[in-house]
Amino acid sequence: MEPAPEGPGIQIEDGHTVRWAGWEFHLKADARAGLVVSRATVQDPATGARREVMYKGMASELFVPYMDPTEAWYFKTYMDAGEYGFGLQAMPLVPLNDCPRHARYMDGVFVAADGRPYVRDNMICVFERYAGDIAWRHSESPITGMDVSFPPAHPHLPYSPCYIRESRPKVTLVARMAASVANYDYIVDWEFQTDGLIRIKVGLSGILMVKGTPYSHMNQVQQNEEMHGTLLSENVIGVIHDHYVTFRLDMDVDGADNSFVRVDMARQDTAPGESPRRSYLKATRHVASTEKDARVRLKLYEPAEFHIINPTKKTRVGNPVGYKVVPAGTAGSLLDPEDPPQKRGAFTNNQIWVTPYNKNEEWAGGLFVYQSKGEDTLATWSERDRPIENKDLVLWYTLGFHHIPCQEDFPIMPTVSSSFDLKPVNFFESNPILKQRPTMEKDLPVCAATA
Amino acid sequence: MEPAPEGPGIQIEDGHTVRWAGWEFHLKADARAGLVVSRATVQDPATGARREVMYKGMASELFVPYMDPTEAWYFKTYMDAGEYGFGLQAMPLVPLNDCPRHARYMDGVFVAADGRPYVRDNMICVFERYAGDIAWRHSESPITGMDVSFPPAHPHLPYSPCYIRESRPKVTLVARMAASVANYDYIVDWEFQTDGLIRIKVGLSGILMVKGTPYSHMNQVQQNEEMHGTLLSENVIGVIHDHYVTFRLDMDVDGADNSFVRVDMARQDTAPGESPRRSYLKATRHVASTEKDARVRLKLYEPAEFHIINPTKKTRVGNPVGYKVVPAGTAGSLLDPEDPPQKRGAFTNNQIWVTPYNKNEEWAGGLFVYQSKGEDTLATWSERDRPIENKDLVLWYTLGFHHIPCQEDFPIMPTVSSSFDLKPVNFFESNPILKQRPTMEKDLPVCAATA
Repeated sequence: MEPAPEGPGIQIEDGHTVRWAGWEFHLKADARAGLVVSRATVQDPATGARREVMYKGMASELFVPYMDPTEAWYFKTYMDAGEYGFGLQAMPLVPLNDCPRHARYMDGVFVAADGRPYVRDNMICVFERYAGDIAWRHSESPITGMDVSFPPAHPHLPYSPCYIRESRPKVTLVARMAASVANYDYIVDWEFQTDGLIRIKVGLSGILMVKGTPYSHMNQVQQNEEMHGTLLSENVIGVIHDHYVTFRLDMDVDGADNSFVRVDMARQDTAPGESPRRSYLKATRHVASTEKDARVRLKLYEPAEFHIINPTKKTRVGNPVGYKVVPAGTAGSLLDPEDPPQKRGAFTNNQIWVTPYNKNEEWAGGLFVYQSKGEDTLATWSERDRPIENKDLVLWYTLGFHHIPCQEDFPIMPTVSSSFDLKPVNFFESNPILKQRPTMEKDLPVCAATA
Repeated sequence: MEPAPEGPGIQIEDGHTVRWAGWEFHLKADARAGLVVSRATVQDPATGARREVMYKGMASELFVPYMDPTEAWYFKTYMDAGEYGFGLQAMPLVPLNDCPRHARYMDGVFVAADGRPYVRDNMICVFERYAGDIAWRHSESPITGMDVSFPPAHPHLPYSPCYIRESRPKVTLVARMAASVANYDYIVDWEFQTDGLIRIKVGLSGILMVKGTPYSHMNQVQQNEEMHGTLLSENVIGVIHDHYVTFRLDMDVDGADNSFVRVDMARQDTAPGESPRRSYLKATRHVASTEKDARVRLKLYEPAEFHIINPTKKTRVGNPVGYKVVPAGTAGSLLDPEDPPQKRGAFTNNQIWVTPYNKNEEWAGGLFVYQSKGEDTLATWSERDRPIENKDLVLWYTLGFHHIPCQEDFPIMPTVSSSFDLKPVNFFESNPILKQRPTMEKDLPVCAATA
């Protein structure tokens, strides 16, 4: 049971503007997008200047195609944000369980069917996270003659000063919203870190969409019979499905005029006689000139970094300041691009897209979603192939999950999470948290068991 | 500052055997492998039976090729476990900073050069982690006539009973070791979860390996000049490199006789007239018969699940019990397979390998590492293509990182982490944590600020 070291503390102004560590941003609950983060800026520890990172970030659309083409199921290819409202479907968070005890809560203001506004409480929570992780560390290998075999006898004593051993605990800030779109629960976390990193994480929980079957045991299933899922319990099949959550990230890295740079890593063979090595990995920077140039389908053996830079702002040693999008767990849609649901879900055809800012291009699946034939998606806008160098850019990133249900997911599934990061890359002159203090015993709260 | 809800508590017997929630396992610090987890078993909440999951799990080798083929750098392609000793290079953990206050510590016993044993304190820490995450949740959409616009006025009050809104906080157990291999620091976490999942996470921190340069600004660099890295500060280049950490996981899923199943997900086109849909994702199970059949190079557009099953043990409804390995952040080596370092690092040619248990096959880069020419690696053993159905299997998984340094990584880099999971798949009959209690205010410790 771990009390956290004293963090910087959360300040909330006007009920929506959050200040924490060097970060400042605005939070609101939107009926369609769910949690919206606006005007995120970070203070540069070297200069004290407040620097822009992102003008607005939010989930733009979700696409959840179920993988059963039969009569009762083929149409189950949901767009949860545009059809149901990611914010409208969010229920109030459960104190102490959805969010920790010291979380702060924000309400959401939505519009009812009769046009009147109404307030729903506890839509968003904000809390400091301390998971026992390490912000940075280094132990210097002992220098001969300096004995390291006798560290302090008790972990609470200060460690020996005769060798370098420094570590800093990691405390971050999380803003959370949980949408229950009928059976399924999505937990959306925006985590702000002291080193300038923003992690966007989606957790999946709730109740699987299942269908009935006469079978109560797998030995009743015919050879090669297509189940479209897993027998989870007697007479219950959990149908295979995908989840895609597409985020719209209106980046403003040190101002609105940004460019998208793909830093490709590829094998470079050495010339004969050049080196005992035959090969090495070489990084090559490519500035995307138009939208089509900035479409990315991730490939493990064609690795790259993806930077949003400000080409007019350079660090002291001349690198352009930037933020990169760092994919983690990934999945790509395998549906036929001409399949009707995929035509509307065409924003999942790539993991990354970059578009010039356009106020009408907010919803990746189109304003009217399934009331369209897919002629108003991110994929159609991107076809215009507009110039994107040194422009106000919008970065689109899709988190994907393939889900073959298993018995552990029934009747309510343990949370499965995936995330991606927006991470400073030559944005700061050096490690911005190098001067963070170590935690001492006196920095920790005094805790006792409850009666 | 968040006190965690009361967790199950950690019991440690004989200084090495850990019991927590349903888990039981043995921990030790090994000179070469670092943290070793043995005989991990989990209690089935439905039957109370103790069930085997893994006989032994550990880091087998690390491969860190730097990407500069010039005279002073080409040989920098380290094997940190076999050459230096992942345990031998671990320094005592820094209390309160490397691990939280209530962590328990374990010592390591190593052999000195003169053959005498010696003890190094605080090599391993074990602690409960509470990060504010959600173990599972569900809110039921309100039924017409049940008003949900008035949740409790204060988050500490119980929520209204008129609609279903359940959530459970996530508390896990972490076993940690941190190795400082000269400049670099590796943080290895084994995280055990109450739902049966084991997450193996590697964090990278410490000091980049850098080289000198006459340049103090990028505008001095010639067009197309190959830097092999990033100008981090005046006269300092951080050289591009990769990290591969290969884990050896001797799985025993409900006993020693296991098989490896690849569950491929691929587009299946519908027949003309079959469905308004053109396509869906179909899962096909394939039991690997031999080692070559079980080699996996991950591909985003050829997704699959990778199960270690016990073919003789079935769930109530007839699914074979299993655990799956779930990749997250991934990177594959792009070096020429015939490049001398890659011949020795050939265990990184695939992300997943499966071999039959052989007591001589512990070190993926070979027993003598760079004292060999690569004739004793996992890749050479696997060439024998031994049968692996219904055998005592060893699963090998490689976590990879491509690292183009940036200024934020200098002079000490904020931790970058990646992980993979071992996750029950039809191992339990249903969600094993469904009956977990929610947290109430009285379950939380009472905390006060320090003076």
